[in-house]
Amino acid sequence: MGVRNSIVLVSFMLLLALSSAFPKHKKQYKPCKNLVLYFHDIIYNGKNAANATSAIVAAPQGANLTILAPQFHFGNIAVFDDPITLDNNLHSKPVGRAQGMYIYDTKNTYTAWLGFTFSLNTTAYQGTINFIGADPLMIKTRDISVVGGTGDFFMHRGVATIMTDAYEGEVYFRLRVDINFYECW
Amino acid sequence: MGVRNSIVLVSFMLLLALSSAFPKHKKQYKPCKNLVLYFHDIIYNGKNAANATSAIVAAPQGANLTILAPQFHFGNIAVFDDPITLDNNLHSKPVGRAQGMYIYDTKNTYTAWLGFTFSLNTTAYQGTINFIGADPLMIKTRDISVVGGTGDFFMHRGVATIMTDAYEGEVYFRLRVDINFYECW
Amino acid sequence: MGVRNSIVLVSFMLLLALSSAFPKHKKQYKPCKNLVLYFHDIIYNGKNAANATSAIVAAPQGANLTILAPQFHFGNIAVFDDPITLDNNLHSKPVGRAQGMYIYDTKNTYTAWLGFTFSLNTTAYQGTINFIGADPLMIKTRDISVVGGTGDFFMHRGVATIMTDAYEGEVYFRLRVDINFYECW
Repeated sequence: MGVRNSIVLVSFMLLLALSSAFPKHKKQYKPCKNLVLYFHDIIYNGKNAANATSAIVAAPQGANLTILAPQFHFGNIAVFDDPITLDNNLHSKPVGRAQGMYIYDTKNTYTAWLGFTFSLNTTAYQGTINFIGADPLMIKTRDISVVGGTGDFFMHRGVATIMTDAYEGEVYFRLRVDINFYECW
Repeated sequence: MGVRNSIVLVSFMLLLALSSAFPKHKKQYKPCKNLVLYFHDIIYNGKNAANATSAIVAAPQGANLTILAPQFHFGNIAVFDDPITLDNNLHSKPVGRAQGMYIYDTKNTYTAWLGFTFSLNTTAYQGTINFIGADPLMIKTRDISVVGGTGDFFMHRGVATIMTDAYEGEVYFRLRVDINFYECW
Repeated sequence: MGVRNSIVLVSFMLLLALSSAFPKHKKQYKPCKNLVLYFHDIIYNGKNAANATSAIVAAPQGANLTILAPQFHFGNIAVFDDPITLDNNLHSKPVGRAQGMYIYDTKNTYTAWLGFTFSLNTTAYQGTINFIGADPLMIKTRDISVVGGTGDFFMHRGVATIMTDAYEGEVYFRLRVDINFYECW
């Protein structure tokens, strides 16, 4: 092999190595993994103890723990353990649990602050995904942060896009969660 | 161009590429982005419903939801939706909202645990920044973690230095937040 | 030095530089730092105000703030400021404080959601470590996320493995936390 060709080859290898080594620093933002999941929240209202998957546990002065607070639920904290499904059917076989809390934190519109974990237990995935972020409910799609994971999601980070897929009064809502991981390990 | 020169050039390019590619692993800790913002918290005390931006929603046994708890507020959880401004004037035009919660978690000094989001909506920045961390209020500057972001802060991480810029009794406080991002994407 | 040798040398340097530059993207998962610590939680039960390090501050409808809620404590939020020790002795000299909250979020088993910070203050380490994640207590070891840090743990990320090291009734428990950092800066 000629010397010039070798130089070309080394330069080419260099470029190739560098370009494949830094995908995450480019503005392409192509996820290294994607999951679309649904979770289902049935809020305890004093009458549905058997079915409820969440409960109001804190409320502002003057409000109580069975009726969401009057000013856009401002000041309510709910704790939840919701089934996660692969499709939008509440009665589909759960693939895991969404566990954590939401906090209604705004007086003049519906906004929640979320801190929760997906614990997945399927043949495809075993592990947890940890989320935090703001959820302005009146906007169609909202982005929150995937701040870490364990098991098959070891050290993962990403962004999850949340959409209210359905709701029934103030008792049931279903969220579609489109999880895009950009750091996969 | 001579062969030797080509080799020198390739080697130089290699060094250049590598040195610019790994700034974040060096001990320089130069932020890739910086923001200094203020947010303003007016705690509901039973009389200021119109102006209050936060409310006590949980308290330890024996305490209530309009007076901060007696032992350094230990056991209080407050939910907030505070205006963010570019300067230290409460009446400046807000550039976004700080939304989330703080938890007073110490009995013998003022310490809070923070979980919140900055939702920014300006011509310069659109997106959210997610924070968690401990806030020992009696120390002049406190560092918390920026654990993720969305929009213009997509996948960002960093450290925010918090300073109590002002307070008035137990009703108002203003925090200066110096956000240094070290992972920017 | 001959031209060919130079090319070999440059190629070798390239490989070496690249291989040492990307340890974290390999499947080796060797931590860059490890800490094993214990923390001790004494829950306020109405009688142990002097010793208690945590308190129930939220409870579901019908429950109160001195007795953990009946359905696997579902709906309780506890705030804590617990001593951290290097060994499993409650009376060892603390090396820092574990501060934050746990939320019992399941009705049919013991599961908590954790959001807390380790504030360490030793000759070896000064700084904070921030954690979130799900803690299914009936499983021997549980993994949560280390989502950020400050000081000596500046920008660190990792996974912490939690183990219930001991408990006494519903008043005291001790957790062993094996922290593995995989991003160290």
